[in-house]
Amino acid sequence: MAYELYYWPTIQGRGEFVRLALEQAGAEYVDVARGRGGVAAMQRLMDGGATHLPFAPPFLKDGDVLIAQTANILLYLGRRHGLAPHDEAGHLWAHQLQLTIADAVDEAHDTHHPIASGFYYEDQQAEARRRAADFTGNRIPKYLGYFERALERNPQGDRHLVGRQVGYCDLSLFQLVAGLRYAFPRVMTRLERDFPRIIALHDRVAAEPRVAAYLKSERRIPFNQHGIFRHYPELDNPE
Amino acid sequence: MAYELYYWPTIQGRGEFVRLALEQAGAEYVDVARGRGGVAAMQRLMDGGATHLPFAPPFLKDGDVLIAQTANILLYLGRRHGLAPHDEAGHLWAHQLQLTIADAVDEAHDTHHPIASGFYYEDQQAEARRRAADFTGNRIPKYLGYFERALERNPQGDRHLVGRQVGYCDLSLFQLVAGLRYAFPRVMTRLERDFPRIIALHDRVAAEPRVAAYLKSERRIPFNQHGIFRHYPELDNPE
Repeated sequence: MAYELYYWPTIQGRGEFVRLALEQAGAEYVDVARGRGGVAAMQRLMDGGATHLPFAPPFLKDGDVLIAQTANILLYLGRRHGLAPHDEAGHLWAHQLQLTIADAVDEAHDTHHPIASGFYYEDQQAEARRRAADFTGNRIPKYLGYFERALERNPQGDRHLVGRQVGYCDLSLFQLVAGLRYAFPRVMTRLERDFPRIIALHDRVAAEPRVAAYLKSERRIPFNQHGIFRHYPELDNPE
Repeated sequence: MAYELYYWPTIQGRGEFVRLALEQAGAEYVDVARGRGGVAAMQRLMDGGATHLPFAPPFLKDGDVLIAQTANILLYLGRRHGLAPHDEAGHLWAHQLQLTIADAVDEAHDTHHPIASGFYYEDQQAEARRRAADFTGNRIPKYLGYFERALERNPQGDRHLVGRQVGYCDLSLFQLVAGLRYAFPRVMTRLERDFPRIIALHDRVAAEPRVAAYLKSERRIPFNQHGIFRHYPELDNPE
């Protein structure tokens, strides 16, 4: 039976980390809110009587199992599709990296919404400038420095974050880099030379046959100004 | 062999969720940075050559295993000490709830540091007022409403978030409520009547023999103005 993925139909957002894992796994899935049922189907499930109620999208339905929280969904899929090591130490390490990627993604979001998700960007633009300056000046280098070291220290080689094959962490790090490039192209141009292993990983992931096919397909929603990664030139300040 | 917990020695912070789990489990542990080695021991480990490098405290050492990210540490401890169900659906659900508590904790932190953790509160006070107004007006009710529903829907009864005994999620929800009460006493006084199951759970957890002994001990660091939950009267606006 195909997986059912529930996420907002017009953005990559957090759902994209799950989409990439499903695509790389070659798993059958329905991106429910992009189909005929639309967002109403997703909303019905959120308002319904499920015991394991999601707080927010994305969530994944696998038969009777309903799982929310992006990193938790990847923990589940990683085990089933060889996208993370099977041994406990390995899968905890992969999950730890994923949770740290999730933290970076949250902070990327808050650069344009530092006050409240419910306000327009224009109503928090001054605050956004201050927060983005800290994010681009301090936080991006700190996060990327960490992932660069993690690659460097992988006993099985610096081509993957964990183990010796493309896992969900690699897919997510690819997506983080792609998102940061979209949102902060000038900042990233300046920073990327310091993180050669991450950039090489990004390029290899993009060239994985299933990922490459996905990225060219209509299933890949383009980056846009409604997602987590948004390009506001005034926030892309490489000082 | 005793667990080694590494966390900042002067605050509850994210480490407190781990401390509560270790205490409830009756596990032997050393709170390393509070001991003779102090923060230097923690810093050495972070700067050292560990393969499974932590991004930030807290992290837990169990012999050769080094685990970071609060929710990931609890996933590990939950399995070993009966603080979460053993079946896959149950432990994913517990983890999903924990990740949602972690999101709420992040947002509580950002009420007093909406721009950057590296700036003083006084340098982001205007932004903090705006962010706290959204947090107390919209986000706290949304999070607590969610956990109240999760309690209500537990097929094994509304005394626990998952299953029929005190788990790490219950301990963490207790800590979230305690922290919100410290930071936003006026807001919480107004809100609590809407979440009777959560408040009852908070009180029961506080009365668990091991938790009660811990809370009275010197091992429990009091809430203070350096942690995640801070009390600034100007942010505690119950409008």
